[in-house]
This record gives sequence, C-alpha cells and structure tokens, in this order.
Amino acid sequence: MPTLPKPSWSPTFATRTEGASSELAAILALSAGTDLISFAGGLPDPQTFPVAVLEDLTARLLATDAATALQYSPTPGLPGLREAFADRLEHTECRRPEPEELMVTSGNIDAVGLLAKALVDPGDVVAVEAPTYLGAIDAFRGFQADVRGVRMAGDGIDVEALDHLCASTAVKVIYAIPDHQNPTGITMSAERRTALVDVCRRHGVLVIEDVAYRELTFTDDRPPTLWSLAPDVVVQTGTTSKTFFPGVRLGWATGPPAVIAQMVIAKQNADQCAGAFGQRLLEEYLRGGHLDPQLRRSNTLYSGRCDLMLAALDEHMPDGMTWTRPHGGFFTWLTGPEWLDTVALAQRAQEAGVAFVPGRPFHPQRDGANKLRLAFSLAGDDDIDEGVRRLGTLITSALENR
Amino acid sequence: MPTLPKPSWSPTFATRTEGASSELAAILALSAGTDLISFAGGLPDPQTFPVAVLEDLTARLLATDAATALQYSPTPGLPGLREAFADRLEHTECRRPEPEELMVTSGNIDAVGLLAKALVDPGDVVAVEAPTYLGAIDAFRGFQADVRGVRMAGDGIDVEALDHLCASTAVKVIYAIPDHQNPTGITMSAERRTALVDVCRRHGVLVIEDVAYRELTFTDDRPPTLWSLAPDVVVQTGTTSKTFFPGVRLGWATGPPAVIAQMVIAKQNADQCAGAFGQRLLEEYLRGGHLDPQLRRSNTLYSGRCDLMLAALDEHMPDGMTWTRPHGGFFTWLTGPEWLDTVALAQRAQEAGVAFVPGRPFHPQRDGANKLRLAFSLAGDDDIDEGVRRLGTLITSALENR
Repeated sequence: MPTLPKPSWSPTFATRTEGASSELAAILALSAGTDLISFAGGLPDPQTFPVAVLEDLTARLLATDAATALQYSPTPGLPGLREAFADRLEHTECRRPEPEELMVTSGNIDAVGLLAKALVDPGDVVAVEAPTYLGAIDAFRGFQADVRGVRMAGDGIDVEALDHLCASTAVKVIYAIPDHQNPTGITMSAERRTALVDVCRRHGVLVIEDVAYRELTFTDDRPPTLWSLAPDVVVQTGTTSKTFFPGVRLGWATGPPAVIAQMVIAKQNADQCAGAFGQRLLEEYLRGGHLDPQLRRSNTLYSGRCDLMLAALDEHMPDGMTWTRPHGGFFTWLTGPEWLDTVALAQRAQEAGVAFVPGRPFHPQRDGANKLRLAFSLAGDDDIDEGVRRLGTLITSALENR
Repeated sequence: MPTLPKPSWSPTFATRTEGASSELAAILALSAGTDLISFAGGLPDPQTFPVAVLEDLTARLLATDAATALQYSPTPGLPGLREAFADRLEHTECRRPEPEELMVTSGNIDAVGLLAKALVDPGDVVAVEAPTYLGAIDAFRGFQADVRGVRMAGDGIDVEALDHLCASTAVKVIYAIPDHQNPTGITMSAERRTALVDVCRRHGVLVIEDVAYRELTFTDDRPPTLWSLAPDVVVQTGTTSKTFFPGVRLGWATGPPAVIAQMVIAKQNADQCAGAFGQRLLEEYLRGGHLDPQLRRSNTLYSGRCDLMLAALDEHMPDGMTWTRPHGGFFTWLTGPEWLDTVALAQRAQEAGVAFVPGRPFHPQRDGANKLRLAFSLAGDDDIDEGVRRLGTLITSALENR
C-alpha cells in the first residue's frame, strides 16, 4: 500500500460547526483551577448534595428495582418520574401538564438543544434576552440561527422592543430566563411576564422559558411562570442539576404536545433517553419529600453567599462600577465604564488568583465588553471578600490609569 | 385580551424534522408488551446487570467521592474514566488512544448523533451497510443526509460496491458495524476490514466504526477493529449499555483529534457531559477488573439463547426461509421469498403473542420487506422455542396460502 498523507478532516465538517463555539468549555476550565478563588462557573456547591438520602435510595433501588433502574428508559422518560414532575408542577405552578405535554430530558441544555434541532432552520431568527445564557446562544448558533438580542431593563426583557422585532421580522422563537437570570440575576416582573406572553401569542411566536434557577429563590416572591400563564405558546425547560445534583443528567420540558413530540423524536437520535438509574433516584427522592428541605438548606447557603458578595462589592468596588442585587440564583452582574475591557481584566485577574466570566460571550452581538459575571454559588464564605477585594484592586487601578 | 385560536406549531418545525422518524420508539414499544414473547428490542437481559458489585461501589463512591461523582463532568469526560477506556482499548485492541483521540459519550447513539451534527450538511452522502442499525439511519437523516445503502455479503460489506460509490459520488462518511452486526448478526472478515479502510483512505472518506456488540462474542475469533487498522481515517464509537448496563448512559468515541474536538463542541450544546456518577461507577468497575467476568457470564447466557433460537428455527421454519448463524451479539436475520410482507406478518404475530422487527426500517431505501430481525437477548430460555414455533406457524401458513 502506498503511504498517503495524513488526512485533514476539517474540510469535511458541516457548515453549522462554524456557528458553534467552545466558550462554555473554556469557562468551565477557568473554574477548575486550583489556588484560584473562582467566581466563574455556575456550579452548585457539593455541600448541597443529598449524600445521606442517596446512600439509602441507591441501596434500596439496587435491592428491589434493578431490572428497571439499570435498563433503558422509554425516550420520553420513565412513567413514574413523569408523574412525579407533573405532581411537582401542579404543586408549585398550579397547573398539571397532561402526559403528552411533558418529557424527561438529560438536563436543561439538552432540552434547549433538542428545541434548536426541532425548530431552527439556517437563518431563522431566535430572539434572546441580551445578555443571556451563553450555552443557549451556542445551542441555537449550532443550528445556524440568526440570534438577536433584546435589551433587558432592571425588571426583565424590554417587551416593547420585542414587539417591534416581531412586527418587523419573522421571529421563530424567543428564549427567556425569567427567574434569577443567567448572567444578570434579574427576575422578570409579573407585569412583564403577562405582556411577554401576550406579545408572543399575538405574533404566533413560541416561547422557551428556562427555569433553571427558579427554585433557588431567597424570597417568598414568586411571580407566575410564563408556562402557567400561557401553556399554549410556552415550552418550559428545567433542570434538577442545581436543586438535586448534576451528576445524573436530568431535567424536564413541558409545553404544547406537538413541540414535545418533536423533541422526543430528536432525543431518540441524540442520547435516546435519560439514564434510568438517575430517573428512579430522582423519582424516589421527590416522592420521599426530600426536595423542599434540600432547597431550604441550599437557599440559606446561597443567600448567605450572595449577601457576602454584595457586602464585599459595596466595600471594594470603586465609583463607576454598578451591579445587580439578585434575590436568588447564582450570579451578580457588574457593569463598568464603556471603555472597560473585561476580557483583558480576566487575564490579569487570573494572575491575581481570581476568576470570573467576561460579559461579551453572553451577548449575541458580542457587545457587553465592559460587563462581567460573578458566581457566588461555589466560592467558600471566607474567600468571597478576598476575591472581590483583589478584583476591586485591579478595577480601581484600571480606572485610575485610564 | 381577545381570544385567539390555539396555535399550531407544526409549521414552525425545522426542515430537518421531515427526515427524522419515530420508528425506534415504536420498536421499543413493541418490546414492552406484557404477555408477549418479544424478539423485538435489542435490550440486554437484567440478569447480566452487576447488582452486587454496584451495591458496594455506589456506597463507596457516595462515602468518599460525592463532590466529584455528583458534580458536573468536563465535556470530554472525567480524566479517570478516559484513562480507563484508554487502558481497555490498549488491552483489547493493542492500540492506546492519545488523550485528544478519546472522549466519553452518553451511549453509542449519542456518539453517532454528535458525528452527524459535526459532519453532515443537507444532501451530504452517508454510506451505510444495507441493512444497518435504524437508529443510525435516523440520526443521519435527522441532519438531512442522503443515506445510501451498500449491500452486504455473508462476511460483511461489499467493498467493491463501496469503492464504486466513492468513485462516482462525493461520499462524506461511511458508517459500519463490523462485529455481530445489527440487524444481521454478520461479522466482517479480516480481509474485508483491510480492504474497507484502504478504500476509504484512498478516497479520503471518514469511517464510523460502531462496535456496540464487539465484546459480546461467542468465539475467540477477534478480527482487528477498523480503528486499530487505520486510526487516521476511523472514528470508533462504543457503548457500555450491553456490557455494563444501560441505566447510566455511557459510551466512548476514539478517532482523529480534529473530529473528536468537533464532537466535544457538539456535546457541549447537547447534554453538556455524560453523568459523572455513572462515569465514576464505570471507572471503578473497570479498575476493579469486573468487566471481563461479567462478559463471560453474559456471553454464556446469550450464546445459549442463540443456540436455542437457531435450533428452534431449524425445527419450525418452513422451506423458503433462510437465516444467519451469528457468533455473537443479540440478533439473527431472516429472509423469506421476495413477496413476503413482514410488516403485515408483524401485526399477525403480535396477535399470536410474539414480537419481532420487520426488515424495512433497517434499509435506507426501504426495501427488505421480506426480511425480519429476531433478538434472542431478552426472551427467556423457555420462551424461545414457543415464540419461534408460533412465528413458524404463521410463516408456513403465509407461504402455503400464497
């Protein structure tokens, strides 16, 4: 056989790969450094993982239900977990999805990716909050969507701007995170929620409502979900990665039956089904009433860290910087003067032993260079003040040397 | 607010959804009937699940490693499991992948779906064995591939026909299952393997080698994998669903670094990572040396069932029917006279209390209507003869009443 040159496979990649980015991986890598105070990744604190209950549940499942728990699951999910999710939604959102309105997913980004695959043709317009979860931008771009940002006010998306966009352009879908948004920490007011679904219903635009952080709330104020307001135009996607734990990939999607059916078909040719072992664990966990006590413990922890971070920001940040004051979730969002370059700052911060995510990747139009996201979910209580102090020193110096 | 008609979302679905089908779900549903002797789904027998070892491993992991096992994993997989997969490949295939040549996936179909997303533009030609795994046909069609079947001989794909196809058409990728193929049970000879990778290297065509059934062998005869012959043109995809258990979604892909890197990007916007809990369980299971003993037990079980099925076919099938005699895997493949309609037969079989999968969906051009697949993996030893007897009676009657 003649020796042939080693083939280069890049020319064979699909056109859609040009739209995908690996920024998410870079961010997760940032948060993995040792000797680093990391405010980067949106990871839950392992302290919140329900180890003791899991010891009991895994032993019980293996002893009594291995033939189901270790086998393949139907693609829409095991019937028992679907029931348990429906029970939970009925309890928390006062609306019970019909069986054909609900499926189990392998986490929240799985649901968003399945929706992108089911809905987005190349060039289709997807409206998102600007800024928004960069994984979702990547998921839509991965199917060559034209992702357009709609600006945010202090209490959520600018519905009037969205209305104008829908009137002037064929918008295929809008993706929103109404609760303790990633990256801003902002919660959408009840008024904006009603206005948003009205606009979308009027224009016939499907809404994807990402509720990843909804249960991580530090107050009793719970505006209604978009899905409970308008189940005919909203697909809600959720995850148990931040409430139960991420090590089994689990979430749900609930929405119009035709959309769920297409997501199920897309899932068959993705991972086929979420793992049955995790599904059975979560079902038993929910049935055992363990989630609400875990949420109370988690929210006490995260709320305390949020307070520590806001106090440290008050103390260490120079004039010219502003930030959001979240009532839940994992993040606060900082804004500096227009000329501030937070990508360059991130590099210097890493040298000073502190990590965060610069603002640009959260913006579909790649603006937001003067903004940055701080996660308070994983940094130790004792590290928060020190990390913010170092960051404050760097920013103060950048502002003074301008 | 005026009452608006309930929106229909079907018009908003992406063009690619026209190529996706839900046949896989229908087949899994077929195998779920009670009171039914099912030769339909390719499910492992729960008897093979390593429950006792898992009881020990889950307890140990939860006690000592919960912060990693219950957390997010890096997208390419946890370093420890990637090492363990590399060790295993070095041991079984005499080639150790470099770190950038290997990733952890959420099962085998996840890997095939990620490759389809990374490689296939609408209209791209994907060559497959005819017949082949219908989940793979769906995965490629889900990205609007032009899927072309290449006929199979008794010892594997017709390499000359593939060569002609590659010479006359721009083939993007070829997907093959060399070991105990789904659905035929055929194993590709060593000669054809060498010829296949030579043809693909010459034409610059990437090969996807699906080794889902490779370890489920009833003989000591192990022709080399395509990947070990040609790691520069082959991506191997594997799963532990049939060797460990399916209830945690796990598999691997190993191939050229540029291709693996694109798959990792695609995975970030799919399920982000395989579940860390399953990854840690599998790593410890492999390190503990438990896989080979499990494989010996499983292969004794499946080999016995294969023998029972072949004996029952010899006894109950009328003249005019032929079938393959597999040396591993889960399936045998029956061929009847040209006019036989196995879709209609499947309906009558279900009424008679026996299930199988008709041949057509395994053929990209939807021929093969006179063929059918029987899985011997899950039917109880005592049911195999009775199920085949019922099927033989139906087929005998169809042949006599022609």
